[in-house]
Amino acid sequence: MTTTLFTGIGELVTNDPRHDGTALGILRDAALVVDGTTIAWIGPAAQAPAADLARDLGGRAVLPGFVDSHTHLVFAGDRAGEFEARMNGNRYEAGGIRTTVAATRAASDEALTANVARLVSEMARQGTTTVEIKSGYGLTTRDEARSLAIARQFTEETTFLGAHVVPEGVTPEEYVDLVTGPMLEAAAPYARWVDVFVEDGAFDEDQARTILNAGRAKGLLPRVHANQLSEGPGVQLACELGAASADHCTHVTDRDLTALADSGTVATLLPGVEFSTRSPYPDVRRFRKAGVTVALASDCNPGSCYTSSMPFCIALAIREMGMTPAEALWSATAGGAKALRREDIGRLGIGSRADFAVLDAPSYLHLAYRPGVPLVAGTYVGGRTG
Amino acid sequence: MTTTLFTGIGELVTNDPRHDGTALGILRDAALVVDGTTIAWIGPAAQAPAADLARDLGGRAVLPGFVDSHTHLVFAGDRAGEFEARMNGNRYEAGGIRTTVAATRAASDEALTANVARLVSEMARQGTTTVEIKSGYGLTTRDEARSLAIARQFTEETTFLGAHVVPEGVTPEEYVDLVTGPMLEAAAPYARWVDVFVEDGAFDEDQARTILNAGRAKGLLPRVHANQLSEGPGVQLACELGAASADHCTHVTDRDLTALADSGTVATLLPGVEFSTRSPYPDVRRFRKAGVTVALASDCNPGSCYTSSMPFCIALAIREMGMTPAEALWSATAGGAKALRREDIGRLGIGSRADFAVLDAPSYLHLAYRPGVPLVAGTYVGGRTG
Repeated sequence: MTTTLFTGIGELVTNDPRHDGTALGILRDAALVVDGTTIAWIGPAAQAPAADLARDLGGRAVLPGFVDSHTHLVFAGDRAGEFEARMNGNRYEAGGIRTTVAATRAASDEALTANVARLVSEMARQGTTTVEIKSGYGLTTRDEARSLAIARQFTEETTFLGAHVVPEGVTPEEYVDLVTGPMLEAAAPYARWVDVFVEDGAFDEDQARTILNAGRAKGLLPRVHANQLSEGPGVQLACELGAASADHCTHVTDRDLTALADSGTVATLLPGVEFSTRSPYPDVRRFRKAGVTVALASDCNPGSCYTSSMPFCIALAIREMGMTPAEALWSATAGGAKALRREDIGRLGIGSRADFAVLDAPSYLHLAYRPGVPLVAGTYVGGRTG
Repeated sequence: MTTTLFTGIGELVTNDPRHDGTALGILRDAALVVDGTTIAWIGPAAQAPAADLARDLGGRAVLPGFVDSHTHLVFAGDRAGEFEARMNGNRYEAGGIRTTVAATRAASDEALTANVARLVSEMARQGTTTVEIKSGYGLTTRDEARSLAIARQFTEETTFLGAHVVPEGVTPEEYVDLVTGPMLEAAAPYARWVDVFVEDGAFDEDQARTILNAGRAKGLLPRVHANQLSEGPGVQLACELGAASADHCTHVTDRDLTALADSGTVATLLPGVEFSTRSPYPDVRRFRKAGVTVALASDCNPGSCYTSSMPFCIALAIREMGMTPAEALWSATAGGAKALRREDIGRLGIGSRADFAVLDAPSYLHLAYRPGVPLVAGTYVGGRTG
């Protein structure tokens, strides 16, 4: 394998506390060596070893690539009109998720694949190196399986979300039978995770437990859409089942926070949703005080939040949720990796994947200090840049 | 001159109400012809004339380039540490604006010019085609004059803001004498506008009137930093003097709004400042009800708001200030042009400058529907792309 030495790293975020005693593990005037797809060496530039190739980054900041652990990228169409009506304070009588389900079912495999490719590429340009992708706009055995087969072309982190909403024309009982039977059978070969939207109007606690346990019996690992619109049983269920992550957590009780801390289930916060739906944000200080591990993700989807920008989510988490800049960066990288139970990403150290972002800025602080500005100068995935 | 026909414009925002009866004047399936630096033809694609060259935009949206009518780009250094402390809720005892003044005075002309070039280029990549640039980090006759001379290399819209703060070592009375005397004399050849920061701790009403009138006597047109941190005399003074714009307007009375509407002075809102300083936003509904013309600008500066992104400001204005998506786009284009008293920009019509942005999206709505995502696929300034 060819080795490449990167020098001129003004600020290197490793997420390895051994470097500086903080969670971000920052090195200044640093260098790193990539060997094939992994990091072979990391440390002060003055001690860097030789390599086959060399690149000088001119004082730029380098950070672990963002791990976006919650997205819904397999869909067709958009819902800009619905967004406009919501922002104008008008009611919008169209079908919400069902609009996207109809468009997705009607789309060709090629069109769905091209849309995922467009969004994954857009994410990479913004520093994201790992993306989780859910199904959930098919809601038939055929369309859920093909959604996951398409997602699998782009990531190992695929999530079966047949239990997104109950589609028209079937009862909830019939649909749970379908999701836990033929649909799971068809989807499982393409999925690592199983997820349920636990909410009034979607799936209740018993239905969710049934679906998540059926997924586990097929070897899928659970994660849960929990407590987005109101307090409810989602977080507790996620903790009970040992889910890797409870996502949204916008409305949580102190008991929920204790359960998250005790179980080690990650709370994945999605500030873009609160921004795009003009909803109140959760207060991270409560999570911090309870000792909960927090991840940040985009929730990129055509309805409630169509951002693909992890830097934007970081800026929002700081401004609106009370995260410190250091916490927000950690949650968007190492936190996302924990939410996906991955040890090889979300940090930069010997043996970790060479997934990193180079900023046109001297410090990661600029991600929030310069909100909205496209600051990612280069993204490396497995040591390769696009 | 070579003419170029642009076809395949899925949505063309003209800001000419004659096209569709709305302020944005939207054409669908449109085309435009650029002749040299101006628009020679605009209309339905089916009626487009021939031209020397042709470009198919593949259904993308085209809008007038953003007119960013309020920035402070001539400076050295950054204040990321101050931002971090503010976001972490800590006091920060460093010098605020004075930190930047010291760094700016110490910087070479070349370093200052390179920094402006970097930011103007970054803005162009985000769709901005006109930028106003203020002095105000020099605060000596030499440093204010050279700041404006540098700014003038990038824009005709230069603003003398010697009256930004009173620098150390002089009394306010001495400084007003300097600003209205030798400093104005040295700065005026490079400036179109004169501006004063009217606020407790900066300049009071009488000082501001003296400075603005001295600038007017030298042929400079007034604009005012008004009512940013508290209610005060800035807006009324701007209206009294016929200023083109009163900027910030975060804390305004109903009487202020009436004065703005009656005088035709534009209220330039700067939502990035409220975002980056965690301050409350003004409510655009009050401005709308009073009949005030509103512009949106970035206020790009290293202290209170280091964004250069007009799309980010648009998304904030909608989410946080109650603008409709249509109002926000108009304010960021035609509104900015009015704040600079320009007729040739901020709209797309026969004879207007060929300043426009092409989006990687089918509609301008995506600027806010997809917050934080770099959606500008191309920016044309005077018919030329970078």
